[in-house]
Amino acid sequence: MAEVRNKQVVLRDYVVGFPKESDMNTVEGRISLKVPEDSNDVLLKNLYLSCDPYMRVLMSKISHEGIGSYTPGSPLTGLGVSKVLESGHPDYKKGDLVWGMTKWEEFSLVPPAQILFKIEHTDVPLSYYTGILGMPGMTAYAGFFEVGSPKKGENVFISAASGAVGQLVGQFAKLTGCYVVGSAGSKEKVDLLKNKLGFDGAFNYKKESDLDATLKRYFPEGIDIYFENVGGKTLDAVLLNMRFHGRIPVCGMISQYNLTQPEGVTNLANLIFKQIRMEGFTVVKFYHLYSKFLEFVLPHIREGKVVYVEDIAEGLENGPAALVGLYTGRNVGKQVVVVARD
Amino acid sequence: MAEVRNKQVVLRDYVVGFPKESDMNTVEGRISLKVPEDSNDVLLKNLYLSCDPYMRVLMSKISHEGIGSYTPGSPLTGLGVSKVLESGHPDYKKGDLVWGMTKWEEFSLVPPAQILFKIEHTDVPLSYYTGILGMPGMTAYAGFFEVGSPKKGENVFISAASGAVGQLVGQFAKLTGCYVVGSAGSKEKVDLLKNKLGFDGAFNYKKESDLDATLKRYFPEGIDIYFENVGGKTLDAVLLNMRFHGRIPVCGMISQYNLTQPEGVTNLANLIFKQIRMEGFTVVKFYHLYSKFLEFVLPHIREGKVVYVEDIAEGLENGPAALVGLYTGRNVGKQVVVVARD
Repeated sequence: MAEVRNKQVVLRDYVVGFPKESDMNTVEGRISLKVPEDSNDVLLKNLYLSCDPYMRVLMSKISHEGIGSYTPGSPLTGLGVSKVLESGHPDYKKGDLVWGMTKWEEFSLVPPAQILFKIEHTDVPLSYYTGILGMPGMTAYAGFFEVGSPKKGENVFISAASGAVGQLVGQFAKLTGCYVVGSAGSKEKVDLLKNKLGFDGAFNYKKESDLDATLKRYFPEGIDIYFENVGGKTLDAVLLNMRFHGRIPVCGMISQYNLTQPEGVTNLANLIFKQIRMEGFTVVKFYHLYSKFLEFVLPHIREGKVVYVEDIAEGLENGPAALVGLYTGRNVGKQVVVVARD
Repeated sequence: MAEVRNKQVVLRDYVVGFPKESDMNTVEGRISLKVPEDSNDVLLKNLYLSCDPYMRVLMSKISHEGIGSYTPGSPLTGLGVSKVLESGHPDYKKGDLVWGMTKWEEFSLVPPAQILFKIEHTDVPLSYYTGILGMPGMTAYAGFFEVGSPKKGENVFISAASGAVGQLVGQFAKLTGCYVVGSAGSKEKVDLLKNKLGFDGAFNYKKESDLDATLKRYFPEGIDIYFENVGGKTLDAVLLNMRFHGRIPVCGMISQYNLTQPEGVTNLANLIFKQIRMEGFTVVKFYHLYSKFLEFVLPHIREGKVVYVEDIAEGLENGPAALVGLYTGRNVGKQVVVVARD
């Protein structure tokens, strides 16, 4: 069978500091649209690729135990929504829509274990399976409900609140009957939080000179749950404003990933005095709850009670700019790259 | 009724930085050895006073929510073992031995709510109720078993390991079938850990120039439970060496209490990648387990399977030096002040 063109985004070299578009190259590879004989791999046509903050960690040379590093010269890997073109594995057949780990290229041959879920519900935008119905949605759900243990009436603070995960945590917290405030990095995002996403309050952290005072203004009685997406100075100010028996699900620390020397957090002794639980988690151990999550969230989406803001980049060649934009906060809502619409 | 002399240790003024003996005064007060009419207070003769790291926090002007501050000019408060001289409350009678919150003075009139427990077992040293059978013992028990959720065969690291709490955590961990290493600040303490307290390994952190490398040497496969007593640089090095699903019960951060600007902890992103739970706790919410704890620990003490090292200062007037010594690590084992032996 003839080979076809396979456009790819490859990492040029390991990244130090903030990633730049030029850290990646768009190249033209070739691929045979055929699963090799005796292979149980699955041949995918990639439709939507997900830009996620953790990808910066994989661009560093130092491999973080358990998540590894990218390989310079090879395509990035990441989550995506794909269509099965051909399958060497009985669980998948031509035409199936799936989401899971794929590569930043037009077509990918992947081992079946990389496919996380078959997509059963297509009355919602397919791109949602990179966001609200994919890893970020599951992260928000597990992080808030399972790690955060929220109770009605509690005070919830969310950083990177308009991002792929944060916007959902805020909406889930409102559905739970919590008071919800988010921080974000622009007026546009703050307006979105207040006007579209139903947050009780929101502020632009870049405009606040004293985060401790800002938090005291929004939370005169303190914070019960801090959903941590950023780390560094924000975490330090939050620690001063936590209530007794507070919980801090640690989902990410995007402000720290590009720093050669991370910011020091100095107020950890508050964990003791206030008996706070701070718990790092990754979504992987919660995927067994995925069908329960879909049962919870799909009706809310259909009834318009939970909304989702996406930032869509058209074309694989615009992927590097989209990915890099995560770390400067350029994106408004979940950053998606469209490789093909079907 | 005539008044008698009541020697007291009072705080001179709020403390900044390391506390000094001269931050406290020993003064002679007077007290009537009689409970006032219509009062349900209890009149105590103080026998043993407990020197505990948290006391430094109360010497600062800034009140930490929930634990308050000392009042300059008034006697220090703290845990102690006392004998009831007279009682306005039906739960206590003359001659009872009790432990709970009292004051740094010879005789104290306290509200009954400050008494935590009546002492029922006197075949062990009475001073133990400031340590292994008191708050530090309960702290070690709850922090290790309830917060740490240990499993047989896990790797446990303990800082301030020869202290009032650490020496017990290590012994409880050994009883659980864990591999146990402790850090302490002198050769004498390290020898104690290895030769008397049954630790598998121990090191003097002051002699180690690269804590990360030291921990990698003792824990080539990483740490499952870090029992945190010190904070700062030690915590930062530990975060690099935690295993997946590790737990960090945060009991104290003694290295930080005297610093005007605490050290920054930079490796918190490991909480995410390794899905670590870091949980501050105070013993107060676990006192309902006290009788269960006594049932567990008393037989071990009687059979010599759990031992306890105390550092005894004789006389209330030697209390300030004993207390100050905690923060320079002068004490070897639990620091107790004897006011009277009966």
